[in-house]
Amino acid sequence: MILIKNTTIITQNRKRQIVKNAALVIEKDIIKDIGLSKKIEKQYSKKTKKIIDGQGKVIMPGMINAHTHLAMSLLRGYADDVNLEEWWLKHIYPIESKFGRKEVYWGSLLSMLEMIKSGTTCFADFYYYEDEVGAIAKEIGMRGILGCAVLDMPTFYFKDTDSALKKAQAIIKKFSNDLLIKTALAPHMFQTTSLATYKKCKELANQYDSLLLTHTAETKQEVDYCLNEYKQRPVEILAQAGILDKKTLLAHCCWLNKKEIKILAKSGASVAHCPISNMKLGSGIMPLSEMLKAGINISLGTDSACSNNSLDMFGEMKTSALLHKINNLDPVVAGVQTVLDMATINGAKALGLEKEIGSLEIGKKADLIILDFEQPHLMPMHNPVSHLVYSAKGSDVETTIINGKIIMEKKRIKKVDEYKILDKVKKIACF
Amino acid sequence: MILIKNTTIITQNRKRQIVKNAALVIEKDIIKDIGLSKKIEKQYSKKTKKIIDGQGKVIMPGMINAHTHLAMSLLRGYADDVNLEEWWLKHIYPIESKFGRKEVYWGSLLSMLEMIKSGTTCFADFYYYEDEVGAIAKEIGMRGILGCAVLDMPTFYFKDTDSALKKAQAIIKKFSNDLLIKTALAPHMFQTTSLATYKKCKELANQYDSLLLTHTAETKQEVDYCLNEYKQRPVEILAQAGILDKKTLLAHCCWLNKKEIKILAKSGASVAHCPISNMKLGSGIMPLSEMLKAGINISLGTDSACSNNSLDMFGEMKTSALLHKINNLDPVVAGVQTVLDMATINGAKALGLEKEIGSLEIGKKADLIILDFEQPHLMPMHNPVSHLVYSAKGSDVETTIINGKIIMEKKRIKKVDEYKILDKVKKIACF
Repeated sequence: MILIKNTTIITQNRKRQIVKNAALVIEKDIIKDIGLSKKIEKQYSKKTKKIIDGQGKVIMPGMINAHTHLAMSLLRGYADDVNLEEWWLKHIYPIESKFGRKEVYWGSLLSMLEMIKSGTTCFADFYYYEDEVGAIAKEIGMRGILGCAVLDMPTFYFKDTDSALKKAQAIIKKFSNDLLIKTALAPHMFQTTSLATYKKCKELANQYDSLLLTHTAETKQEVDYCLNEYKQRPVEILAQAGILDKKTLLAHCCWLNKKEIKILAKSGASVAHCPISNMKLGSGIMPLSEMLKAGINISLGTDSACSNNSLDMFGEMKTSALLHKINNLDPVVAGVQTVLDMATINGAKALGLEKEIGSLEIGKKADLIILDFEQPHLMPMHNPVSHLVYSAKGSDVETTIINGKIIMEKKRIKKVDEYKILDKVKKIACF
Repeated sequence: MILIKNTTIITQNRKRQIVKNAALVIEKDIIKDIGLSKKIEKQYSKKTKKIIDGQGKVIMPGMINAHTHLAMSLLRGYADDVNLEEWWLKHIYPIESKFGRKEVYWGSLLSMLEMIKSGTTCFADFYYYEDEVGAIAKEIGMRGILGCAVLDMPTFYFKDTDSALKKAQAIIKKFSNDLLIKTALAPHMFQTTSLATYKKCKELANQYDSLLLTHTAETKQEVDYCLNEYKQRPVEILAQAGILDKKTLLAHCCWLNKKEIKILAKSGASVAHCPISNMKLGSGIMPLSEMLKAGINISLGTDSACSNNSLDMFGEMKTSALLHKINNLDPVVAGVQTVLDMATINGAKALGLEKEIGSLEIGKKADLIILDFEQPHLMPMHNPVSHLVYSAKGSDVETTIINGKIIMEKKRIKKVDEYKILDKVKKIACF
């Protein structure tokens, strides 16, 4: 058992309760109790091996990065401030084609270190060689979704669509009974992946009860492509093909019109909002207010460190709050609670894990982070939720617990030698 | 003498040179030498008392926060996500009226801790009781501009305009020969300060060779007020009154038209761009590209921690890059070098200190920071300037040197007991 005492707990439960002078008890992988510290200590202190003093600290649910491409951290800062087409065709795609199993391993490992250190406990990845990603996650103890990318064009991982689908199927089977790892089909986007392939992916997803992740309406060019090719907009196409339901997670959604918002809301599909990537690539602004009003579940993602260039969800939260205020010239939209929800409980819903993670409640999995609030930039504390969204940084996370296990303590990740990994990454990334 | 060896130096000199395998020598308050580490070590190692190994680290000029209200950090997170009018009238102004000398002291001290820890070595403050701010800066060893606020309405610091001007004059005289501290007149903004008062401020500024700081075109309401009251737009009014010259620094400038941009460029006045505050309050977007094309010197500021809610200039850099890309739907604008310039050398120009600070060059003052780049979120390093703008955080700063003195080393600020200050702040900020 682990007991964290004398602390402030941001539960993110249904009432969004914040409990002060609180304690939390973990037994095995589960949150066993939450309550006032005095009472909890009395009941559990004697039978607890590990007691953490939470004085001056804040506990919140581990954050859920709902859209990322982990291995691409190897290309962090490799190409910035260029046009999307140039970025992709001249820089990213050519260099990425030199990637192989080794690059995916080290890039994903690097990203997991960054995520654990900055308070992310669960991710939805979208890439190649996802068996490697799964293996690292299990080794380190992270929770995640392996999104097996499918495209109708050759990549460094598969020759064609059939081989992409076969490889995805093998990975889905391999992790079918895993406790930490779930799998997903991940058709890339309409410009690279035909509707027929999307349909095959959805069939497989249904067969294995997996999620389907995809990029949707990221750029205006994509919408134009769809209108040209299919005479419909992206969300209309997906809906009509029976691809949108509760097990679908669409990344970006910058260019939705009113009709698409309505369709999306009705379908029960979720969205992974990636404000920093959309801003950095100049892609567009997701209509957050309208989508929230329609009742769409919006989660938050960093996208890859290649278009961000960080996997820090605290930065993503702050930027999402700022972006929608200025876009609406209205400081009321994207308030702190809305934003914190996107990074936690909404992410859990998007990944079909809302019964297990996303909030700190008795009976749920113990995925949580402890932040040091005794620092100048977090003082004074009039409102802890405001501080989490506007003032905190990934570097304020001291302890990361996933599935009841302490993965990082006092900012040191257990189980791995961080400096050895960084040395290896330096060698691997000499493109 | 201090010698920092084996490192990467972002000089921000005229050629924007980045020197790898480099070393830098500080003698007293001055940068005595910069060059390849082997050569520098040979020449200086024996006569140097303090040698810092810069392996895996990056050195850059200390950042210059060109617009802030330090004492307002006491109100960090006190009122978020509300309309500007409600924010100011219902929340900030009433609580601020309870402030006094004590609150300004502790709020400003708190802010200086945050700034030093996140790599800011020079600030332009804009508030009341600036003698307190100056005293703390001297005590800790920070460089700064004391902007003495002047309004035509009573505040907790003065009863009327005359007393505001007298108090400002006394502070200007008090710090007239200071090496670290400069002073400025700071007429507030047109809605609270008449043109007659602006003119008096400029006269005093001229008399004492001081800067004039003010808020200009922050909101559309302000422009409407000026059009209504003076039949001219803010920059036109200031120009016609002879207030715009090289010693004028305008904060915000969100709502400039083409004519104003032309006038501003011709005047030689500088601008303090505050993207996060402008976004958070939903004020507006400064037309950066147009202003840069016109040749205006643009520096960067956080504004107060009350509308940000952070004084971390790394966050400000990243947000400025993102904001202008999405605003123009063009990833090419606000590139990393442009943004780094705003936070360093342009800030120095804006404060009339470009011969002393803002870049690392032989003969300039030794105001610099050392960042730890051996961390997952800064790996691999394809381009150090990209990392400074997009990936680094204030918490990556290990060492802060101002005027040749080590103010912070290994993340510990010398001269003060940080935790004692935080305890005091908690008590003071119980509004």
